[in-house]
Amino acid sequence: MLIELSAKDYVRKVATDDPTPGGGSVAALVGSLGGALTNMVGSLTIDKKAYEQVPENERVVMEEAFTKIEEITEELILIVDEDSTAFDDVMNAFKLPKETEEEKKIRSEAIQAGYKKAMEVPLKCAEKCLDILKLQDVFANYGNVNAITDVGVGTLLAYSGLEGALFNVIINLKSIKDDQFKEIINKRIEELMKEGKQIKEDMLEIVYRRLS
Amino acid sequence: MLIELSAKDYVRKVATDDPTPGGGSVAALVGSLGGALTNMVGSLTIDKKAYEQVPENERVVMEEAFTKIEEITEELILIVDEDSTAFDDVMNAFKLPKETEEEKKIRSEAIQAGYKKAMEVPLKCAEKCLDILKLQDVFANYGNVNAITDVGVGTLLAYSGLEGALFNVIINLKSIKDDQFKEIINKRIEELMKEGKQIKEDMLEIVYRRLS
Repeated sequence: MLIELSAKDYVRKVATDDPTPGGGSVAALVGSLGGALTNMVGSLTIDKKAYEQVPENERVVMEEAFTKIEEITEELILIVDEDSTAFDDVMNAFKLPKETEEEKKIRSEAIQAGYKKAMEVPLKCAEKCLDILKLQDVFANYGNVNAITDVGVGTLLAYSGLEGALFNVIINLKSIKDDQFKEIINKRIEELMKEGKQIKEDMLEIVYRRLS
Repeated sequence: MLIELSAKDYVRKVATDDPTPGGGSVAALVGSLGGALTNMVGSLTIDKKAYEQVPENERVVMEEAFTKIEEITEELILIVDEDSTAFDDVMNAFKLPKETEEEKKIRSEAIQAGYKKAMEVPLKCAEKCLDILKLQDVFANYGNVNAITDVGVGTLLAYSGLEGALFNVIINLKSIKDDQFKEIINKRIEELMKEGKQIKEDMLEIVYRRLS
């Protein structure tokens, strides 16, 4: 499994002409690092001296966000490997026979189904990265000020995981012929990008303000 | 060494209340992934079928950029661990005796020297990430179009490594009292951010154009 490789070997493997791990796998890893950094700030705040500065009603919010981010981070860790097999169905479909008209039709449908499935993995990755961004607010506002830059890096990474994953949705979508499906996905891509960018800017603004 | 941990264990270690690895180490890892993804596109272009589409005069540029990015990626890999010891001098300085005026003066000077040194590591990381961004142009314009999204993810990551590392420069700079030194570093931070942001936007524009 890719995620079991040492960080150094993973980086070096990315650079080779083996298409996996590629941008989709890396986006998931980077998103998971964004989650982990956010939770590091949580770990340095909850039940620590810095917790005294956190208003009572925000503590529940922070603890719940911590648990959710922990779950999402683990889910993103799984996508690091899942992404590299997402394309298998497309590759297998391309190998199907294409002699008769019937075979051509079956093959073409299998390819289309493969692309749709391949697209689901980076789309899931993008959704999870957005979920992390949505949960960062309480850490940006009330996290241990000595670790506030780590929320900032976490924001940059969750956002990069989001846009990076969407790149892979977009490139797979190009091969899909179902116009109605394409329209639905394109609309979701737009929403994810818009919401993600807005939260990223808001979070960074808070971090830079607390840093100054 | 952190970089020898499995990618999964590294992510999980980030999330703990141990301040290392923190945002500085992660920024270096993410920058190295940005370099590696860019070079994956190089690996899928140079001497491959896609190389036919690369103009003769751009091939030398691409091959040279490939070699340079390979070097920078390895340098960033080293920073993943270097960052976690960068703060050692500050921590040791804080442990110095502070009974007499003379001791106080020595301690204070040692702390200041420690902060300056601690700042050098993320500053170097930011410079290396900018170097990667500067070298991406030929891959964005002439890299294998089937892997063009990987240049896009590479750009997002090199930029996140840059801004992420600068967060750590800024937070350390707050503890430094030497105004002249602060002014020099603040000017460099501004330049790095401005140049990095501009290149990031230019690269993403090329990638989205080639993707459409």
